[in-house]
Parts: sequence; structure tokens; C-alpha cells
Amino acid sequence: MQSDIITLTTDFGTDSPYVAAMKGVILSLAPQVRIFDLSHDIPPQDVWHGAYFLAACIPYFPPETIHVVVVDPGVGTARRLLYAEIGQHRLLLPDNGLTTFLLRKMPLQRAFQLSEPRYRLPQVSNTFHGRDILAPAAAHLALGIEPSHLGSQVHDPLLLPVPEPRMDRVIRGEVLFVDHFGNLITNLEQNLLKRVGLDPAAGSGPPVTLGGRRIERWVRTYGEASPGDLVALISSSGYLEIAQVQGNAAQVLSVGRGAPVEVSLVESPITG
Amino acid sequence: MQSDIITLTTDFGTDSPYVAAMKGVILSLAPQVRIFDLSHDIPPQDVWHGAYFLAACIPYFPPETIHVVVVDPGVGTARRLLYAEIGQHRLLLPDNGLTTFLLRKMPLQRAFQLSEPRYRLPQVSNTFHGRDILAPAAAHLALGIEPSHLGSQVHDPLLLPVPEPRMDRVIRGEVLFVDHFGNLITNLEQNLLKRVGLDPAAGSGPPVTLGGRRIERWVRTYGEASPGDLVALISSSGYLEIAQVQGNAAQVLSVGRGAPVEVSLVESPITG
Amino acid sequence: MQSDIITLTTDFGTDSPYVAAMKGVILSLAPQVRIFDLSHDIPPQDVWHGAYFLAACIPYFPPETIHVVVVDPGVGTARRLLYAEIGQHRLLLPDNGLTTFLLRKMPLQRAFQLSEPRYRLPQVSNTFHGRDILAPAAAHLALGIEPSHLGSQVHDPLLLPVPEPRMDRVIRGEVLFVDHFGNLITNLEQNLLKRVGLDPAAGSGPPVTLGGRRIERWVRTYGEASPGDLVALISSSGYLEIAQVQGNAAQVLSVGRGAPVEVSLVESPITG
Repeated sequence: MQSDIITLTTDFGTDSPYVAAMKGVILSLAPQVRIFDLSHDIPPQDVWHGAYFLAACIPYFPPETIHVVVVDPGVGTARRLLYAEIGQHRLLLPDNGLTTFLLRKMPLQRAFQLSEPRYRLPQVSNTFHGRDILAPAAAHLALGIEPSHLGSQVHDPLLLPVPEPRMDRVIRGEVLFVDHFGNLITNLEQNLLKRVGLDPAAGSGPPVTLGGRRIERWVRTYGEASPGDLVALISSSGYLEIAQVQGNAAQVLSVGRGAPVEVSLVESPITG
Repeated sequence: MQSDIITLTTDFGTDSPYVAAMKGVILSLAPQVRIFDLSHDIPPQDVWHGAYFLAACIPYFPPETIHVVVVDPGVGTARRLLYAEIGQHRLLLPDNGLTTFLLRKMPLQRAFQLSEPRYRLPQVSNTFHGRDILAPAAAHLALGIEPSHLGSQVHDPLLLPVPEPRMDRVIRGEVLFVDHFGNLITNLEQNLLKRVGLDPAAGSGPPVTLGGRRIERWVRTYGEASPGDLVALISSSGYLEIAQVQGNAAQVLSVGRGAPVEVSLVESPITG
Repeated sequence: MQSDIITLTTDFGTDSPYVAAMKGVILSLAPQVRIFDLSHDIPPQDVWHGAYFLAACIPYFPPETIHVVVVDPGVGTARRLLYAEIGQHRLLLPDNGLTTFLLRKMPLQRAFQLSEPRYRLPQVSNTFHGRDILAPAAAHLALGIEPSHLGSQVHDPLLLPVPEPRMDRVIRGEVLFVDHFGNLITNLEQNLLKRVGLDPAAGSGPPVTLGGRRIERWVRTYGEASPGDLVALISSSGYLEIAQVQGNAAQVLSVGRGAPVEVSLVESPITG
């Protein structure tokens, strides 16, 4: 399947010349493509952040898109580089867990290791496979090569361990992702909350505890509360989110990824 | 009017997956478009910054361009989402004042509320209308739908209150915008200064007071003074600007948006 | 030669409207082009950083590309604006040393000053030649104008002084570039190290001294050592690099561009 849409997601920043070099390699091989930057601000070497990022945006793209992802602390070691078809989406990335959250949403169709030298740059460095292997592979795929020619098949992409919510009289989860506004996205999905009889989309619910603070205000959207208020709501990705209206909840609560969050199912006073 | 040029201006940053999701939605509906990033670094929820930003760049674009702007602290509340034709330019944005400075340069031709469900995603979240309403509207416009089909007409977009210069023996204005270099752009327009007999484009003028400092040096461009010098000049947008040569005036003067600035029309000593 | 690929490299950031205005000018004149952002995060007015950046990415682009570069502390002064063909690459930039590192890799074919008013905006400001001169020149080149029509020929682009390694019993170099990860790229090229009998690509070598620290561990890639380790290796651009595995060497060593680095050719204890 030919394509002219390639996206790039990296932790390179753009103060360094690495993203630019990848664009040059792609355009030299496939001069007709359009390249769309998804992010170059994944925190350095933060595979988890990258994995969450991909699951929240890749599903919106058309299937012909070729997604190149470089968050690659193991560059040059034995870690594999993969072409992976997940649902109807096509990704090129290191096999380090970046597909974890996407694979919870949709199945792996097939994957291949990027081992065929023909689809790499003639010289491959040890520390920049984004430029030397992933970018040329993307260009060749855009030109229509059959993905199985890239290398041998892979059936077991590496997955990160994902914390699962636990439930007794409280639902215990944790913060999965902190976004640009400091909003705290947890691993408590809207459907899980519904199954225990809550109606989170209605903008009401039981107290939520996070960072030593008890958050009692549920809303449907930020503007229903006043600037500075801490609120609980369902995020645009369908998970419980704690936000500060026109502020930064992560800073105010001094919490980040992994912070435990609790939703009280049986009302009881919380001492603080 | 069909188009294949869509621009994006947001306060989302690119560490979060929100910009990427919008690009996916647009490309899924209108696979042929070119998307141009104008900025994803508008300070979070800073409508004023966004409004100034738009007035300084939108006029340079060709009229077929569709500009999507998301700086939207009121997302999900009663605030409207608009399609607005301003001058010959077409924008999709929340009705929260983002058009303020553009509308001082060119007239509102027509505007429509984005209320037609057909041109939204099937599921609309409460907190991410950029993805669920604005991006699909942009794609449909690119495909050639008639803007009046988007919803009912709007005649009164919300405007921010803009400070006007006051003049007696001094001209009193204020800082409107701080740019990436720390240059301080004021609300004192070149033409206003000309009307009182000054010739600011010549690189000379009376003392300017800002942040408790008296700036006596006027230049036509930064390089006419020495690194570190504080200078007054006419900015590339036609307003009085205070800059530090190869430095950051905002930091040196410890001032930001809203700081009062004065131009002395009658020379008199200023005690500091 | 017509082209539809224009790249942009600036120190403007994207919180300011300057990059957006340049894109508007280009698209208004040449509506069919694709514009690729290389960077808008060159540190403000840091010509050296920009010069290194260009040499590390421009060679990967196809020759039809038109590269616009704006890091221009001398905007509006007597400094020239150039169209330069270097190797087979085409650049538009201020004549302030930005071509220095590229010209060490490939020869200047020809260069012209951008003096022809016909290829500028009708009004040229004193402080924003990126928008008023470089962007329109890029659009006109994309449309196929002959470069020699832009202005008179130039034979002597300004070059920055580049430190050369010195060798006796140690090789003395310095840090040329600090990348987004804090990796320290030096001016000690792989081939220079080979000429004195070292085999740096093999992942072994003599001690390296930098920032008062003696770094003994050589690797081929980061993942060969443990997180936190300081290592020496050959960068993806072919130069000696000092890195901290999954960390930031520039911060840990408290050094930046210009810091002296030494490679001991004759092993001897180093007192610290």
C-alpha cells in the first residue's frame, strides 16, 4: 500500500539537528511525502510517556499513515526495531514497550523486525537508528514496498507492566499521565466507574483522594467550576482526570505519574 | 471554496497527544490537506496572547487557508464555537476574544456558530472540542462545504477590552505582548507617534520610560546599538518596541504584559 | 529549478507569531509548496548553534530543497543576506557565519546577495527580514526564478573561527555542541582518532578528561553501560561524544560549549 503521509514522534526536541536529519532522509528517498510532526517533546527516554501518547492519538489517523516513533534509550543494543500493524495502524519503532497502551485498545495484526540492510542507509551509526534505519524504512513503505520484506516476523513485542485498578470499599488507581496543562489522567476508566454504579459523565461522584487532598467537586468540564478549584472529571480519553481549573493540578498537588488515587465507594470521613 | 491548507494554533504544547489527535481527525476526513503548525506554545489558556498572535500572522496567509485556533479555557461551557470570516481570512475558534486584535485590523464579514452535529465527530467529549468539533469542521470546510451549513449566524463575537493610549504631555501606553526574545511590544502605534510630530522610523525620539527605567536610545534596528543596550524602536508589526540588544528586555526590566510605558513629548528631567 | 520543498530553521520559538508570518508569506506567493520545520528552537541569536545544526542535517536533504535559516542578531544592519549553493544544497540566510560548518564539509558553488527589491515584500521592516526578504525569496525560488536574479554575486561568506584539535601526548579539543539530551559533541573527529592508532568505533579507547572528570569507559552505544554511567563514544555525526547513559552529561559535568576535552595518548595517571 503506497502512502504519502508519514508522522514523526520523538524525544529529540528540535534544538538538536536529529529531527531535521530524519526529515531529510525521508524526503531524499520519497520526495512526494507529507510529513506531520506529532511531537518532538516526549520527555527524554521516557518510553512510558511515549506509549501513552501513541494510544491517545494514533487511533484518529487514517490507516494509510506511516507512524515513525523514536524514544529509544536502548539504541544500538540488542533491542529490536519493529514494523508493527496494530489494528489498522502502521508503526515503525523500537521494541521497548512503546506499543503497550495501543495494544490494549486493538490487536497486533503482524510485526516484522527491521533487519533487511537494503532498507537502511548505507552506513548505520550505533546511536541514531531513527535517521539510519527507521526513516529509510518509512520512506520505502511510503513508496509501496511489502512490509514483510523488511525482516523476519515478530510475535512478541515487549510490553510495559501497566498498573491495574484495585477495588474494595475504595477504588485504588494511579496517575498514568500528566499532560501539558498539569492535568492528571488516571488509570480509572469511565466504564469501570460505571460498573460500580457511578455516573461520572453526569459531573457528580464520590470524593477522590490524591496527593493527600480530598477532591469533592465533580464536573463535566473545567469551566463549570471556578479558577483555582480542584475538580474530578472524565477526560477526553475516557479516564478519571483530576484538574485545577485554569491552573496546574500536578504542581498544586505535587504529584506526578504513579501517584496513587482513590475513589471512595462507601462514604466515610477522611482524616488529613 | 475548497482548500487544502489548514493551520493549527493551540496552547496544547506537543508533549501531550492533543495536537496529534487533531491532525489525525483532519487527515482521516480530508486526506489530501497540508497542515501547517503556527504555534502550539501559546501560554496555557492565555486568550490575550493568542489574540495578539493571530493579528500578527493571519494577514499574511492566502485567503483559502482555514485557520483552526484552540485556546479555550471555557471548553464545554456555554461559550460558542465559531466559524468567522474576518477580512478575507477564515478561522475556526472559540468565541472568547481570540478575534479581538484581528477585528481591529479588518472587518467581520460573517460568522456562524458550529452547532451542526453532522460536522462533528460522532462522540463529542466535554473537554476536547478541538478534536471533536473544530478539527472535523476544518476538514469539512477543506472539502468544500458551505460555511453557512455549520450553524446559525452570529453577529457579536466576544471582544477583549484593549487598552487605548492616553496623551497629554506624555503618551501613556502599555506593553501588549512579550515575544520569544523578551522584546516588549507596546500599544503605541507608529502612526500615533507620527501624528504628534515624531519620526520613529528614523531611529530617533524622546525618552521612553518603562519599568522604572528611562530609555533614551532610539534605533532603527537592534544591531545599531551594542549588546546589552536598552533601545526603543518600531517593531516589525508597526508598534513601539523596547528591546535589549542580544538580551532579554522583559527580564532586565522585570516587566511583562500590561506594564505602563510612557513617551515624553515635552522633554523634562525624570527623577529615578 | 522549480521546487515545492521549503524548510525553516529559526531562533524564533513558536510562542511568537514570527514563524507563522513567514509561513503565510511563503504560501501567499507559492501556494503549492510543502514547508518543513527543521527547528524554531535554535537558542536566541546563537549563530554558532545554528551553524552546527545546519551541518548535521542539511546534507541529508534532496538538492531541490530550499532551506531558509533565520538566526540574525544583525538584522537591519549592513550584514548581507545571501542565497548560497553549498555542495548541491540551496540556502537562504544572513551572512553571519551560519554556513561555517557546512562549508567545511562541502564547497561553495555560488552565492548571491538578496538585493533585488522585486523579490521582497513591498514594505521591508528593519527588524524582520525573515518575513520581508527571506520568505519571499524562498517562494520565488520555489516558483523557479534563476538565483542569479536575486542580486550580485558574493564570494566571501563570513566564517566563524572554529577551534582545531591540538595533539602532543594528549589530544586537546573542545565541546562543539550540546544536544537536547545533554550529550557533549566535541571537535575530535573519528578519523583523527584513527590516525593516531585508536579504534574508537570498537568501543574502547584511552581515558578522556572533561569537566575535571576522567572518563574511562568507552562504548559503541549508550545501552552498553548502565544508567548514570559517563561514557565516551563516537556520535552519530562521527565525532567524539561524552554522554551520561539515560542522563544529562552537560548537567552532571557542569560544562557546555567550549569546554576543553583531552584524550590521553600516553597512559599516565591523572590526579584530580
